[in-house]
Amino acid sequence: MLDFSELPVVDVHCHPYTAKPQLSADEWVDEVSFGGGSADYLRAGGMNADESALAMLQRVKRDTMYFRFLCRRLAEYFDVEPTVDAIVAARNRSIAADGYPAYAGALHRAGKIETLIVDDGYPLPQVDLDGFRAEVGVEVVPLLRIEVLIQDLLAAECGWDEFSRAYDDRIAAALTDGGYKGLKSIIAYRTGLDIAPGSRSNDQGRIALEKIRGARGRGGDAVKHLRDHLFCRAIERCIDFDAPFQVHTGMGDWEVHLEACRPALLMELLRYPAYRACKFLLVHTGYPYHAEAGYIANVLPNIWCDISEGLPFAGNAAKRIIAEVLEMAPISRVCYGSDTYNTPEPFYASALLGKRALAAALGELVDDGFMTVAEAHETAKLILADNARELYGLG
Amino acid sequence: MLDFSELPVVDVHCHPYTAKPQLSADEWVDEVSFGGGSADYLRAGGMNADESALAMLQRVKRDTMYFRFLCRRLAEYFDVEPTVDAIVAARNRSIAADGYPAYAGALHRAGKIETLIVDDGYPLPQVDLDGFRAEVGVEVVPLLRIEVLIQDLLAAECGWDEFSRAYDDRIAAALTDGGYKGLKSIIAYRTGLDIAPGSRSNDQGRIALEKIRGARGRGGDAVKHLRDHLFCRAIERCIDFDAPFQVHTGMGDWEVHLEACRPALLMELLRYPAYRACKFLLVHTGYPYHAEAGYIANVLPNIWCDISEGLPFAGNAAKRIIAEVLEMAPISRVCYGSDTYNTPEPFYASALLGKRALAAALGELVDDGFMTVAEAHETAKLILADNARELYGLG
Amino acid sequence: MLDFSELPVVDVHCHPYTAKPQLSADEWVDEVSFGGGSADYLRAGGMNADESALAMLQRVKRDTMYFRFLCRRLAEYFDVEPTVDAIVAARNRSIAADGYPAYAGALHRAGKIETLIVDDGYPLPQVDLDGFRAEVGVEVVPLLRIEVLIQDLLAAECGWDEFSRAYDDRIAAALTDGGYKGLKSIIAYRTGLDIAPGSRSNDQGRIALEKIRGARGRGGDAVKHLRDHLFCRAIERCIDFDAPFQVHTGMGDWEVHLEACRPALLMELLRYPAYRACKFLLVHTGYPYHAEAGYIANVLPNIWCDISEGLPFAGNAAKRIIAEVLEMAPISRVCYGSDTYNTPEPFYASALLGKRALAAALGELVDDGFMTVAEAHETAKLILADNARELYGLG
Repeated sequence: MLDFSELPVVDVHCHPYTAKPQLSADEWVDEVSFGGGSADYLRAGGMNADESALAMLQRVKRDTMYFRFLCRRLAEYFDVEPTVDAIVAARNRSIAADGYPAYAGALHRAGKIETLIVDDGYPLPQVDLDGFRAEVGVEVVPLLRIEVLIQDLLAAECGWDEFSRAYDDRIAAALTDGGYKGLKSIIAYRTGLDIAPGSRSNDQGRIALEKIRGARGRGGDAVKHLRDHLFCRAIERCIDFDAPFQVHTGMGDWEVHLEACRPALLMELLRYPAYRACKFLLVHTGYPYHAEAGYIANVLPNIWCDISEGLPFAGNAAKRIIAEVLEMAPISRVCYGSDTYNTPEPFYASALLGKRALAAALGELVDDGFMTVAEAHETAKLILADNARELYGLG
Repeated sequence: MLDFSELPVVDVHCHPYTAKPQLSADEWVDEVSFGGGSADYLRAGGMNADESALAMLQRVKRDTMYFRFLCRRLAEYFDVEPTVDAIVAARNRSIAADGYPAYAGALHRAGKIETLIVDDGYPLPQVDLDGFRAEVGVEVVPLLRIEVLIQDLLAAECGWDEFSRAYDDRIAAALTDGGYKGLKSIIAYRTGLDIAPGSRSNDQGRIALEKIRGARGRGGDAVKHLRDHLFCRAIERCIDFDAPFQVHTGMGDWEVHLEACRPALLMELLRYPAYRACKFLLVHTGYPYHAEAGYIANVLPNIWCDISEGLPFAGNAAKRIIAEVLEMAPISRVCYGSDTYNTPEPFYASALLGKRALAAALGELVDDGFMTVAEAHETAKLILADNARELYGLG
Repeated sequence: MLDFSELPVVDVHCHPYTAKPQLSADEWVDEVSFGGGSADYLRAGGMNADESALAMLQRVKRDTMYFRFLCRRLAEYFDVEPTVDAIVAARNRSIAADGYPAYAGALHRAGKIETLIVDDGYPLPQVDLDGFRAEVGVEVVPLLRIEVLIQDLLAAECGWDEFSRAYDDRIAAALTDGGYKGLKSIIAYRTGLDIAPGSRSNDQGRIALEKIRGARGRGGDAVKHLRDHLFCRAIERCIDFDAPFQVHTGMGDWEVHLEACRPALLMELLRYPAYRACKFLLVHTGYPYHAEAGYIANVLPNIWCDISEGLPFAGNAAKRIIAEVLEMAPISRVCYGSDTYNTPEPFYASALLGKRALAAALGELVDDGFMTVAEAHETAKLILADNARELYGLG
């Protein structure tokens, strides 16, 4: 039996959070669960978000394998019964006794989480990173989400010359003095991953912005043309500063553009000669289209996969995702990530799930004659931390 | 080892059948198998459906894992050798001795099948449901397939006002006095699942029908526009009567529109505000795109998955489908179904396969720390019967 | 425990190779690995293919599960340490001592590989098949890749009458006196698998070629229209000569048209009445979209799946591919293949992997009550050799 529980973890994709010291059971479920809708979702559909509707939402949130796993691990951590009420009482007590930073730091340490590489685009308004760093007591490495920048510039009502200059300048500033180690895009939530490589033409950006700004309305493909251009422009900035580019692929929350989130749609762009010098990390390794991401990471030498979001939010998928990504992706191209947010509990549970799933998946590879036990340990270290450290140039 | 063999079953998606008392071995294979073509299929392709061609068809039908499983379970049931000849002789003998209703009823009881929720659109002409109910001796709950209704109305040569009124009225009548508990659509066989939410505009239906009826021919997208409109209109009727809507997703028979049957294509429609009050059941959970269905059932609170057709017709996929759907779908959102038809034998084999596959899949979830044995039993009861009972308001 | 190591193998899809007697370790890795880019790939992207870049390429090539499996099996074969240096030294020594034909023949015999059905389109320039046959000492059965023929005819600057006549004649000559047993297409690398059945119209070919040849330029869809026509024309020649048609589906190398390589895209064509008499083999069974291929092989009676490329190049996917294809494909419709090339070592490792994966996958089917041990042995014989022998009319 392989056991990686003592190995250190770099979480290559997650989100900073603010303190949420005292929560009711239902509030806590809303913070730590994944999916399941919200009162706002129902109301926008003309439905009553009455007590029975809210009870239904709570039920589906609590009925996932991810949520069950989270609760069982936290019950063990707090040494209480595996019920939501007992767990929430324990965490509230612990925070009241020791303070939020001590509580959060202890959970991160218990998961051996040494470094968080955080996408600063969620939550909004943005979390103060210095405060977060102090609070959790682990290394925090920020990435700049280009869609936040794009939203700012669209609101600024400037013309293309100023827009494009500001876009380049703010990325450059972030990647130099700003302490940012790379970029991130969620274009899969906006206009999709079918981005023509030729979109990098400056004219495409100019014409699209003029259409959006001008009397000619926002119609047609102008928004897509602008976003596609800015995505390609971000690739070029990543090459300039040798900074990796994280691109959301696969499932996300309920708003993702599900028809246009497959890694396969990126293939033409990723192999385009002008972009080959960029290091791309396919975020969520495109789950459940993760075999596509593994394939791309095999045939193109500048592609990394992170296994976040499917792990932990697809619960029992964790072992399958790792095993199937490793069908083709080289072991030096796969990184642990969680995409967790809001509170420290999911970070902890995700680290435990990742280590167990790695042990199970690599154990089968050992049994089936693909690697030795020593290679399995080396692989686990690479995936849990060292590949991310090398990719982001961390100590 | 978990064992769910004694648990009662509600089959959330299947088809009524007529008595087929005495069959030859080849006839029986044609009735109970899945796939494999037919003499008509060959003849339409200009081929001879001669003896050797028919032998080839028999062979491929008998060479699937589903068919092998069916035969082995029936051989155990009849206590005969696991050969087609022995099984067919045994079932013919049993029917000759006891009559068809006793034979069919015994198989349904042996599978602990208590309720059949049947799509009335196959076979055509429609089976008399009262007769079927009496024959099988279990609860039979019918669903109205909108495509049968659409075909009738297209044949009626009426204009849009009459067409749309009759469409609404006949659905309303079925869902009130008619004893129907919901609707079903196989639009994935016709024009595909990429349905624009705005298709609910009455004008879209009117203009499309006028094109189809008029001198302007059937060309262009008129048929798709009409079907998309009627699909959206059916959603609104489901909301009016609080009736679930079963939508075919994923593979079907050889005529399915394979390029446009993925659950992902429905995402925009399912989350459209005006449709959030409708309870959708994604039939076949979109196998082999079932992870998409599970994801949608996670992030949207009004989605159910049934695991029929993949189970039993994809044979050894059964455990995988259950495990992968549960990666994201809440346990309260997954229903057992079989999509079986023609004769009682597949209903029985499917129930056995479903219970074995559930035991295997949930057993792994227990082993991997996602649930306790007690939770596994609770989950099995929900999936095998109680979720469907709650969804359809059955006793 | 099932053990198929002594069963004979027909490799239904692979490539001829020329002798590569003495290689450095890095050269050998380049010959036997899959994926991972090349110095040319980097240079075309404006990057330096310097020593550190080449070391990076070597690393990712060596970091896949396929490569690890290959090395471990070869180390056992040569009885040396499982390092690249030791293996390469051993194979160089063996070739120096015994000559290349003896070395290659011994590896093929060790894998019990009796017949190679080879696609003559890789490598280019084409390998002399008589020489190859003599060298490897096994039966070699060639297939004609239509894209090589198309390239020749496009270069010939002839008009449509001559082009189409030459196309038909050269296929006919290959399939009669030429000793070719079938055709192969890689249209998934060119213009994709979304081929309209009506493309068989002679006018489509004529008009497309005229556009390509003429002053009207190569633009628009002319190339796609021509390729689609020639693909349909090849189907008709296959029917004329009762020769199977191998069609690439799913992943390939880094140049594949990843958005248009899914088996599902072929569905409309495969069931088109005029093409039902053609026997299609879906090459690579569309990995990782292999469930689509298995489904198509279930519902249409003229479809075969070969499991090559995923096996061996997706390493630990081998068992999963077999198990998932057999969810729906009849056991008489699945063929072993490797898609290996360049040197004999991957042929050997692939045969071992195939037999192990078959034993694991069929062993689970036995355990889960789908087949007996005797049926598992029969199934293994069919998949490893007999289905291909029957399909290609081999002794």
